[in-house]
Amino acid sequence: MVDNKRPLILVTNDDGVHAGGINSLIEMVRPYGDVVVVAPNQSHSGMSHAITVKTPLYINKIKEEDGLNIYKINGTPVDCVKLAINKILDRMPDICVSGINHGSNSSVSAHYSGTVGAAREGTINGISSIAFSLLSYDSGADFSSCVEVFLPIFKGVLEHALPEGILLNVNAPYIKGLKGARVCRMARGKWVEEFIEHEDPRHRKYFWLTGHFENFELDASDTDEYVLNNGYVSVVPLKTDVTDHDSIELFKAFNYETSIIH
Amino acid sequence: MVDNKRPLILVTNDDGVHAGGINSLIEMVRPYGDVVVVAPNQSHSGMSHAITVKTPLYINKIKEEDGLNIYKINGTPVDCVKLAINKILDRMPDICVSGINHGSNSSVSAHYSGTVGAAREGTINGISSIAFSLLSYDSGADFSSCVEVFLPIFKGVLEHALPEGILLNVNAPYIKGLKGARVCRMARGKWVEEFIEHEDPRHRKYFWLTGHFENFELDASDTDEYVLNNGYVSVVPLKTDVTDHDSIELFKAFNYETSIIH
Repeated sequence: MVDNKRPLILVTNDDGVHAGGINSLIEMVRPYGDVVVVAPNQSHSGMSHAITVKTPLYINKIKEEDGLNIYKINGTPVDCVKLAINKILDRMPDICVSGINHGSNSSVSAHYSGTVGAAREGTINGISSIAFSLLSYDSGADFSSCVEVFLPIFKGVLEHALPEGILLNVNAPYIKGLKGARVCRMARGKWVEEFIEHEDPRHRKYFWLTGHFENFELDASDTDEYVLNNGYVSVVPLKTDVTDHDSIELFKAFNYETSIIH
Repeated sequence: MVDNKRPLILVTNDDGVHAGGINSLIEMVRPYGDVVVVAPNQSHSGMSHAITVKTPLYINKIKEEDGLNIYKINGTPVDCVKLAINKILDRMPDICVSGINHGSNSSVSAHYSGTVGAAREGTINGISSIAFSLLSYDSGADFSSCVEVFLPIFKGVLEHALPEGILLNVNAPYIKGLKGARVCRMARGKWVEEFIEHEDPRHRKYFWLTGHFENFELDASDTDEYVLNNGYVSVVPLKTDVTDHDSIELFKAFNYETSIIH
């Protein structure tokens, strides 16, 4: 199906196969290898690392061109990566790129993000994987500025595979004149929920999730939120091993183990 | 709504409010405080840290007793925690417990798990949170053995709050005569997908996710998989900051930053 002499590039996202962001990403990576797109047939924002276990999945090929094949799936971003690896591709991809997401996936938003979930699934399967996001929720957003900075990151990872168990979470502010990229850490923070409340036509009260992000460490210059606010693209290495190794000894000294030996 | 003198205990899960596991968990924690259950109205296995952004949510109170209130939500486990904190409880809970899940959430399964997602959401909001799981998918499983070992862990955390940004992922083998609990780390591994393939009534080929877990480090005695295989409950401290801090300097030395300064 694909020419083994060129890199095999798996592309996915969470906004769905027809979103502007994934099309910009396809254009960005297409010169560098054979591109296979496996993406949800509709928007799956906020799907995190979710998988579909209760319903069957369908694979529909919607485009076949020289060096570009596009499939859509009625599942989550992580489902797309699993189906790509197991049922669509005839060999493991050299790189997996997810996005470009319409909206931020910085700080704790990485936990809610289907874009990041798909990249994490790539990493769990041993593929160098990158999640790309632009800080604009506009479906007609202009991706040209961020692509200028994303491209060297993509090329760097294509040339030098990421260490095992590490993915990159890359976000760009929606501005012209980006200053470059900065490697940094997730800022500590959380979403403060507001929940819009209304009545439905049957007079039942409903709640609709909304809110704003609260940054707990505004002045920390080594965080993604800080560099984004200062005109840089943020590059955060994330781990698939999310054990807090530092606290294992602390908890061992605690009472959990000894109190319950039979 | 609740007596402020007793601990306030938030209970949730991903198997739905009517599952056996959550009812065993409610019985386990009820003597220790006022219990508010906010759980999905149906099974949400594999929902990870997903949130519902495209549809409205409804809160239905289904039980009100002395010291026990139960609500069901048409959303994900993480939605339940968000609605509990923002719309149901009149103060922050002292502890959040999620489960008892019907099935393992050890190793990388923590990424797919809605049970763990709910506990992580509690931790992001500053609540000491624990995910409990039993290694049996049987809806009629007997939770009495695991509860004996889970209870001292729950009591320990209720007495000594967890450090900021840390949740506990606790799994029990489905055996009688558990040897106790062991603090350990996530084993490295992945799910090997098999995807059942059939034709639907309209002769369209479909794929249904299944598979088995592959442990990459069978002999590592400090991992959750190892202790579970040896008759112990595994207690893994997980982080909400999933940055790989160790590799930040490595990536800084790389080419991402310098190649793209405008």
